[in-house]
Amino acid sequence: MRYRDAGVDIARSDAIKDDILREIRSTWHAGVRPLPGGFAGVTRLPGGGPLLAATLDGVGTKLHLARAAGRLEDAAADLVYHGANDLLVHGARPLALLDYVAQARLDPDVVLAVVRGLARACREVGAALLGGETAEMPDTYLPGVVDVAGCLLGLLEEGALLDGGRVTAGDAVLGLEGTGLHTNGYSLARRVLATSGLALASPLPGGSGESVGDALLAPHRWYGRHANVLGSAAIHALAHVTGGGITGNLVRVLPAGLQARLNPDAWPRPPLFRWIAGAGAVPEADARTALNLGIGLVALVAPEAVSDVAGRLGREGLRSWRIGSIEPGSRAVRWEDEPPI
Amino acid sequence: MRYRDAGVDIARSDAIKDDILREIRSTWHAGVRPLPGGFAGVTRLPGGGPLLAATLDGVGTKLHLARAAGRLEDAAADLVYHGANDLLVHGARPLALLDYVAQARLDPDVVLAVVRGLARACREVGAALLGGETAEMPDTYLPGVVDVAGCLLGLLEEGALLDGGRVTAGDAVLGLEGTGLHTNGYSLARRVLATSGLALASPLPGGSGESVGDALLAPHRWYGRHANVLGSAAIHALAHVTGGGITGNLVRVLPAGLQARLNPDAWPRPPLFRWIAGAGAVPEADARTALNLGIGLVALVAPEAVSDVAGRLGREGLRSWRIGSIEPGSRAVRWEDEPPI
Repeated sequence: MRYRDAGVDIARSDAIKDDILREIRSTWHAGVRPLPGGFAGVTRLPGGGPLLAATLDGVGTKLHLARAAGRLEDAAADLVYHGANDLLVHGARPLALLDYVAQARLDPDVVLAVVRGLARACREVGAALLGGETAEMPDTYLPGVVDVAGCLLGLLEEGALLDGGRVTAGDAVLGLEGTGLHTNGYSLARRVLATSGLALASPLPGGSGESVGDALLAPHRWYGRHANVLGSAAIHALAHVTGGGITGNLVRVLPAGLQARLNPDAWPRPPLFRWIAGAGAVPEADARTALNLGIGLVALVAPEAVSDVAGRLGREGLRSWRIGSIEPGSRAVRWEDEPPI
Repeated sequence: MRYRDAGVDIARSDAIKDDILREIRSTWHAGVRPLPGGFAGVTRLPGGGPLLAATLDGVGTKLHLARAAGRLEDAAADLVYHGANDLLVHGARPLALLDYVAQARLDPDVVLAVVRGLARACREVGAALLGGETAEMPDTYLPGVVDVAGCLLGLLEEGALLDGGRVTAGDAVLGLEGTGLHTNGYSLARRVLATSGLALASPLPGGSGESVGDALLAPHRWYGRHANVLGSAAIHALAHVTGGGITGNLVRVLPAGLQARLNPDAWPRPPLFRWIAGAGAVPEADARTALNLGIGLVALVAPEAVSDVAGRLGREGLRSWRIGSIEPGSRAVRWEDEPPI
């Protein structure tokens, strides 16, 4: 969902960013729900009924590590978990997936591994693998690599749409535990790994015996397992922490006039993130926008309900921490240890 | 939509093909309409209402030629026309597009050109550009190239679904004129161009003055402009002629027990196809499965209505020819000049 903040990712100039956004908006018919910073696109269907939500993403460079470790199937599954979380944060449940698998020369075993992973995750999240394309393009792809992208479709009831509109001053910011990098920060992690002298099989520095490979390739956590809790009325907004980190994603659900104040010491930073930041000499400010730092999803919760929500998640095996709160301000994420602007 | 005939494209063995199909089918919930050979996937929505159709495809190697000619915007638009035709042949109208644009290093001007082309075509076909992803992957893509894929969503009324089920013996096969290669056969065409000694600016051999580049890069025709005619009850099935040619795509809408008999001389073969087949020394049998040969869409029409359908299309500026008929047989496409099997 880069178009909404295309300036960060792709546009060398504000003029190009504006041009891209203008082009996109020129296509929006009356059914489209404008979601500034949305994690998915949402549109009404003619004749009423549920709203349709859709998101398209790629697995990214996690694929390279996964192939090296013989775990392509798991990385493909991550695409589905990632997309399902992007739907979940708007209140949508998965309906169908369409996938794109591309190589310089198609290797049937690679395609089968990818489809196995996608299908397994589709069964888990309740999405039908409805179609897709395998492309063989020797003049486009480097030899031996594979790219995997996919479009996940979902549905939600009109009244269930989460779009940040219910966020109010005083809301608690609850950080939900992730499993690792999920699917972001792998370019950085691979650079650190390459210069660290460690192998995928090496024990993770500071860890409890798990290998670097296992830590790096942990599956992207799918938070839809906790949809019962996360769908309650006390949840005012959800943000999926992907590229941009907590800082870059939490801001996407903040209405004008509100800011988030976060305490960076409110949760234990997992060894994987301490190792990447340390071995890569990543400044703390950069780590906060490049990595999720152990928080895969952020919930903005009515303050009186935080304990109950955290308790219910805990009983389902998911740890969470109150990492900050919402206050009047200028639509930004502030960290308590940063100097005031 | 390669999974349905994955053996042709990707599977070195029937075992892998079967494995892939089994994985895919394992995800299908009760709403999914199994469409053997479908050009798009179709599913019911919970609670009724219209059916949802979805297709995902890439522009393919036409992108390379288009970039060389400075016409990336047009090639991006072709992705939408291609997808809209894949929906049309099932009776669906476009609703939304999600796109994937990937490069080794993102070039904002390239992304803008792609988005401009997509947005223009989206406005034309009535699809909202609802989301997408731009990926920068230097370890995956060759320097300087771009890949563009997209997922097009559409809707159709339950009773309007075209799935081949209405095809009967005696139906006429009507071939609708294309504009050129559309988006298939470009690997072959580029090989022929590279060995022909011709440049993109050279006049097309046998043509009426147009350049090779203009002929090769003609936009993919969108047949949804003629949806009024093509949606009439006399139209029993539609096939979009993409990879696999008339042979490989017409067979996708044939029910068991029926075959198509086609006359290869029933329409004028455009100079572009004569040049590619001649300069590339492509055997006629291969040309018929690699290229559309000037027919971009095939309609199976109640015989008494063929003249009327062709006449109405003609008045809208679209030429068509009666190129064959449907008869009892073994779910195959037979050409009249081929020896009997």
